[in-house]
Amino acid sequence: MSLRIDPFHAISVSALAHRLKAEGRSIIHMEFGQPSTGAPRAAIEAAHHVLDTDPMGYWESPALKARIAQHYQESYGVTVSPGQLTLTCGASPALVLALSSAFSPGDRVALARPGYVAYRNTLKALHIEPVELACGANERFQLSAERIAALDPAPAGVIIASPANPTGTIIPAAELEAIARVCRERGIKIVSDEIYHGLSYVEPARSMLEFEPNAFVVNSFSKYFSMAGWRLGWLLSPPDHVQAAHAYMGALFLTPPSLAQHAALAAMDSREELEGHLQVYRANRALLLEALPRLGLGAIAPPDGAFYIYADVGHLTDDSLTFCKRLLQDTGVATAPGVDFDPVEGKRFIRMSFAVSTPEIQDAIARMEPWFAQAAGKPVV
Amino acid sequence: MSLRIDPFHAISVSALAHRLKAEGRSIIHMEFGQPSTGAPRAAIEAAHHVLDTDPMGYWESPALKARIAQHYQESYGVTVSPGQLTLTCGASPALVLALSSAFSPGDRVALARPGYVAYRNTLKALHIEPVELACGANERFQLSAERIAALDPAPAGVIIASPANPTGTIIPAAELEAIARVCRERGIKIVSDEIYHGLSYVEPARSMLEFEPNAFVVNSFSKYFSMAGWRLGWLLSPPDHVQAAHAYMGALFLTPPSLAQHAALAAMDSREELEGHLQVYRANRALLLEALPRLGLGAIAPPDGAFYIYADVGHLTDDSLTFCKRLLQDTGVATAPGVDFDPVEGKRFIRMSFAVSTPEIQDAIARMEPWFAQAAGKPVV
Repeated sequence: MSLRIDPFHAISVSALAHRLKAEGRSIIHMEFGQPSTGAPRAAIEAAHHVLDTDPMGYWESPALKARIAQHYQESYGVTVSPGQLTLTCGASPALVLALSSAFSPGDRVALARPGYVAYRNTLKALHIEPVELACGANERFQLSAERIAALDPAPAGVIIASPANPTGTIIPAAELEAIARVCRERGIKIVSDEIYHGLSYVEPARSMLEFEPNAFVVNSFSKYFSMAGWRLGWLLSPPDHVQAAHAYMGALFLTPPSLAQHAALAAMDSREELEGHLQVYRANRALLLEALPRLGLGAIAPPDGAFYIYADVGHLTDDSLTFCKRLLQDTGVATAPGVDFDPVEGKRFIRMSFAVSTPEIQDAIARMEPWFAQAAGKPVV
Repeated sequence: MSLRIDPFHAISVSALAHRLKAEGRSIIHMEFGQPSTGAPRAAIEAAHHVLDTDPMGYWESPALKARIAQHYQESYGVTVSPGQLTLTCGASPALVLALSSAFSPGDRVALARPGYVAYRNTLKALHIEPVELACGANERFQLSAERIAALDPAPAGVIIASPANPTGTIIPAAELEAIARVCRERGIKIVSDEIYHGLSYVEPARSMLEFEPNAFVVNSFSKYFSMAGWRLGWLLSPPDHVQAAHAYMGALFLTPPSLAQHAALAAMDSREELEGHLQVYRANRALLLEALPRLGLGAIAPPDGAFYIYADVGHLTDDSLTFCKRLLQDTGVATAPGVDFDPVEGKRFIRMSFAVSTPEIQDAIARMEPWFAQAAGKPVV
């Protein structure tokens, strides 16, 4: 029976963007959280080869699981067994597996607001109660050990996201450690969404596994590895939940896409190319950070990682969806409304993705500057 | 919290098969329900082209939805709107969408036993109560309007599968119509799994939509279209559930694989090649039907469609899993134990997939004949 699952409003912004484009308008797509680049060259080459040589039945790649386990050793100094991994059709199903194998209907799971819309919706779809904690600019829009310690009663679980969507903020190592400690003390299971790992502009994001070996970790090839449409992600389950995660995978999803697994294995050894994308994002981020004050958008979350700017436009609107559509209509720059990430405060925020080319960012700034100048002082909508 | 989700035992048979192969043994894989052929040539060509020209972000193909809608018109004379379709990462997620958007925890959903293992497991994972109705050889292992009418109280829903897995039996049109009528009268929602459509050896399978426009229909590109590892399927929802299905898709899965959508569009116009596969299955089926009595396996479900033989081996075993492993060990022929499909009666059945090449079927028969001759009269395990 249908629960209230909120639609993703950025989709309607994007639909408008595509209509305008079809009418001949020049559009800069900064509304979705995906790289505009394709998969690494080696991944494409591997895919061509597999297409010609493999009938591609239902399959899980042991080599990819081993390579991901190696990645945890190399990147975080954490030893995990390939058997702890479940390869999934993207991070979304990995989250479904984690939540459905770890929690029961009626359980309460805490998470930060603002946050990725699917956390709340997936919890609701699985009849788990989301306990949304409003996290403001002072808290860098992130949960803390202190907030989790204050929850009464203790929730069954907590979702941690660092770097976060829509803000890009990273939780420092000491705070992650403190969160792990309070969750251990209070018997709270941790689900850590690490999908933006690899995309950091300050210090590298640390894995929750460094502090809590029993955390569930969700990740995918959609962001750093630039393979969003390939639909491949993974869940790393604690040893005593591995069997359940595999059983749920078999029941709910069967297997992940075969071709993507071959390509992803090649992508994991394409560091040079992928670090090149990161340098583009770094340049884009610097351009935006330099320009935003000129646009009157000084109140932003510190974008430590990911590829987002989450900007307060509360001086111009209290209806971020209409605001995004107006901005798009007038300038051709598509952004995501804050209401996708925060049904309460999000009406005065917008999210810009800077995972586009640097010329596009320069163009977007050039288009937005006069628009925001004209808007200044009088509410847009 | 972990429910009891049964593992798919055929996986352990397959694992043994791969171990034996690695030791140099010749193995014939008849344990899984997938074609041994790859995607149609045109699909492979389309995929090569897309790999070289498209960065492949998150995407849903409007053209593919339109083409699938056209398929309903052409194949069943049923008019559906492309908007009723949700493209998914295979039939499994389509079933998850149908069940989670149509039912609530605690609801009861009826289904035939034997049946595809994921029905029961997915219902349990979603906290919906499976009402399994034992359907024996006399009922061709299928639900009937009579059985559904007799359920007291009426369940919230029913899962219909025609052609069925593991038996291949097809529900005749008159019976589908009667099922639709009794479900309408009793307010029972129908979820119709039509994943084996296109694979019929008697009359073509009819869609439940011909008799009940408000049925949920699950289908995929894994069987007839020979694209199992591409992970692409669809859910067709009744008009008043479309919005919920799309919202659940966004929350639980986001988007289906991009490349598979391009390739599937080409596959839908590759009829000649796909009908060629069907001719191979037809020949394989005939060879098996001719040989099985010689093996002492006279008691089989009539394989009207799909690519399975479900054979009673109760005179030789009451432990079908051990039986399958012994058969594999001795002959190199891998099959699936009936316990995967029926936890009660399945201990005396095995399922053979004949979606392999005809020389493989001939070889499998040649290997099994002396083995079953030797086994005759004394229980194997």
